[in-house]
Amino acid sequence: MTISALLFDVFGTVVDWREGVARDIGAFLARHGRADVDPRALADAWRDRYQPAMEECRSGRRPFTRLDVLHRENLDEVLRDIGLDLPRIAERELEDLNRAWHRLDPWPDAVDGLARMKTRHVIAPLSNGNVALLLNMAKRAGLPWDAILGAEVAGAYKPRPEAYLRTADILGLAPQALCMVAAHNSDLAAARACGLRTAFVLRAREHGPGQESDLAPTGPWDFVAADFGDLANQLGC
Amino acid sequence: MTISALLFDVFGTVVDWREGVARDIGAFLARHGRADVDPRALADAWRDRYQPAMEECRSGRRPFTRLDVLHRENLDEVLRDIGLDLPRIAERELEDLNRAWHRLDPWPDAVDGLARMKTRHVIAPLSNGNVALLLNMAKRAGLPWDAILGAEVAGAYKPRPEAYLRTADILGLAPQALCMVAAHNSDLAAARACGLRTAFVLRAREHGPGQESDLAPTGPWDFVAADFGDLANQLGC
Repeated sequence: MTISALLFDVFGTVVDWREGVARDIGAFLARHGRADVDPRALADAWRDRYQPAMEECRSGRRPFTRLDVLHRENLDEVLRDIGLDLPRIAERELEDLNRAWHRLDPWPDAVDGLARMKTRHVIAPLSNGNVALLLNMAKRAGLPWDAILGAEVAGAYKPRPEAYLRTADILGLAPQALCMVAAHNSDLAAARACGLRTAFVLRAREHGPGQESDLAPTGPWDFVAADFGDLANQLGC
Repeated sequence: MTISALLFDVFGTVVDWREGVARDIGAFLARHGRADVDPRALADAWRDRYQPAMEECRSGRRPFTRLDVLHRENLDEVLRDIGLDLPRIAERELEDLNRAWHRLDPWPDAVDGLARMKTRHVIAPLSNGNVALLLNMAKRAGLPWDAILGAEVAGAYKPRPEAYLRTADILGLAPQALCMVAAHNSDLAAARACGLRTAFVLRAREHGPGQESDLAPTGPWDFVAADFGDLANQLGC
């Protein structure tokens, strides 16, 4: 069966979340006299709360809640953890910092690779990011998505099967006509279990120079690519 | 407040549904020896069942059901009405005819006007069409949407307030930061009641040469335009 649509993980796969978040955190910390805190360490601490927060929704303990809300709750916690007095910080500034996730830069090969893949396939994010986050990111970075899909549209966070299967249903396509593109083996394993094809793209610096995870494919993925240009080549785009 | 996003009605406003549907119906009728039936009349009959079918969902008598499904039910009914024996027609052919709504052509000014408006605003459909329909249409016609929104994503058909207000919520924007663009006064009235800005675009041939409705604005819309180029001019794009 032909691949009709390519669905992309975004954080880490399309954009460099760690450097982008650290950039905005660094400016924030400087304004508040906290240059003693490492912005990348705080970005990592913020990200560490990402999976547990989504797990509350995946488990059913909490109704589906969009990522902007979870990010904000997690941000408040990590800022309190470094001793900041949040009520003394303007709400607008905290809200703006929370939107650092809307302002992430793509990896250098991403925009050109997506444009090439778009010529022969539908391309859309299948991210845990919410629609506004992904849309603002795309508009700023020039990511040429055909549609903005993902957890919020499906009403379920990856790696729940509903995230993949409802997306296929919304697209009116069989899971086999979709290919999940991700830098994370766990995402691809969940997609493959739902019948999607899979493409692993190596992002060896997502977590910085000391990265230890996802440095190689760990499953029988349909494609293994060095970057989006390589994947476009393999797809004949 | 600045207009951040322009939301477009699609059937009639962006694309010429009547001629597009009639084209595919004409080919279908010819294949089945029914050149006695006027394709435009059958397109109108199919469209006449559109509002009553959505009303079942709006009223709560039926759960929200995507438009491809409603279109197919309505197609079967109008084909039976002209005396066709549906069980003798291949399912694949009926399904393909149902997707005539995925293959509609834009009005001549639409693609260029959207591309201009996209330079300064988020542009997205806020249509009762489902995601796959709008995405396939956009891919074929070159409609440069930033995102595919509408009834299926909001879980409610226009003119229910939820269709407009949930779309604003998903975009993370106040209703006042959105402008609804439509060729239909009723759509604009509902959007305005929810706080959105409004733009009327004249489409005097949507219903063919004898059109009597929506030939002039009937409310205090923020913009009144002759076509998408004119609207782009008025928006300074």
